[in-house]
Amino acid sequence: MTDSEKNSNSCEPYPDLEVYVALVHYPVLNKKGDVICSAITNLDLHDIARASRTFGVKGYYVVSTLDDQKILADKIVKHWTEGVGGDVNPARREALNLIKIKESLEEVVDDIGGQGRVKVVATTARDSKAVTSFGRLKGELVKGGSFLILFGTAWGLADEVLDKSDFILEPLKGATVYNHLSVRSAVAIILDRLIAR
Amino acid sequence: MTDSEKNSNSCEPYPDLEVYVALVHYPVLNKKGDVICSAITNLDLHDIARASRTFGVKGYYVVSTLDDQKILADKIVKHWTEGVGGDVNPARREALNLIKIKESLEEVVDDIGGQGRVKVVATTARDSKAVTSFGRLKGELVKGGSFLILFGTAWGLADEVLDKSDFILEPLKGATVYNHLSVRSAVAIILDRLIAR
Repeated sequence: MTDSEKNSNSCEPYPDLEVYVALVHYPVLNKKGDVICSAITNLDLHDIARASRTFGVKGYYVVSTLDDQKILADKIVKHWTEGVGGDVNPARREALNLIKIKESLEEVVDDIGGQGRVKVVATTARDSKAVTSFGRLKGELVKGGSFLILFGTAWGLADEVLDKSDFILEPLKGATVYNHLSVRSAVAIILDRLIAR
Repeated sequence: MTDSEKNSNSCEPYPDLEVYVALVHYPVLNKKGDVICSAITNLDLHDIARASRTFGVKGYYVVSTLDDQKILADKIVKHWTEGVGGDVNPARREALNLIKIKESLEEVVDDIGGQGRVKVVATTARDSKAVTSFGRLKGELVKGGSFLILFGTAWGLADEVLDKSDFILEPLKGATVYNHLSVRSAVAIILDRLIAR
């Protein structure tokens, strides 16, 4: 049996990329450009977990510095992973099992294996000087290694995050100049562009 | 100046496809396979309107037979299109301006110009015998004419909708066998695959 035959018979037939996703609530920008910690929302947990599971993402990190927010997110996740939610809807359990709640991006990187082991990819809707095309990033993913893709909430990732990243992915263009997708939609499209066959 | 030069200088530089989207709350299936009318949710209105605006969709129809649900949806839409929401966030007004609330798919088709003028595309996560690939549907869109893409809520569009459609789009595959994307994510990815350059 050739490798391609093996792949076509497998339950998970796509290349085994090692991609992680983080939804960043701090440090992000507000409308005025100040650095803030935004609020965690229930549907960001669900939609991005389901997209992550669909595209074989290895872990979905939710980053917030606010203790009450982290407790709330943890309660929601546990309802679906350990509570009755998961009994009623096992597919949802499978998705939300990917979620880990962390205090900072440093904690996320450490959890994956530490700096040097994981390449960090920032996303932004703002045009920037140092951008990596979807095609180029896809090429990097296929070469192998761990990649952590960061998505900003509110008005996007703070500059300090962009500056420290290994790659800044080009802004997602639709078919018009309007660039106000929800972060949920942006994650879905970006994972599809980078990972789907 | 050639057409392509004109296009490259335009604010809306992509081919002017005539695509409409409908989010169907009736007739859809529940978990047991019964035909039901599902509940309208606030974030479906926002996320799908924003994705529609991003990809140059001409109208976003929300279909429900329930009067209280339609009144609620209308209130939400008006808050952003005519109320203070749109003053605070004009980009959101621009997106939600695409929304029209209708009682039935027949009303939607009539609003676009009537049967015969619009080709209806059903989407489904279930494998089906009569499927159109993304590539083929993209080819049809580029040829011209009006297309209405239907998305089912709950457990998906009822068979009667699939049977009456001109095309049934192939199920969206990610990178695994898991196929439980939110309808919001599915709309975003499908519009990107069909419409983005």
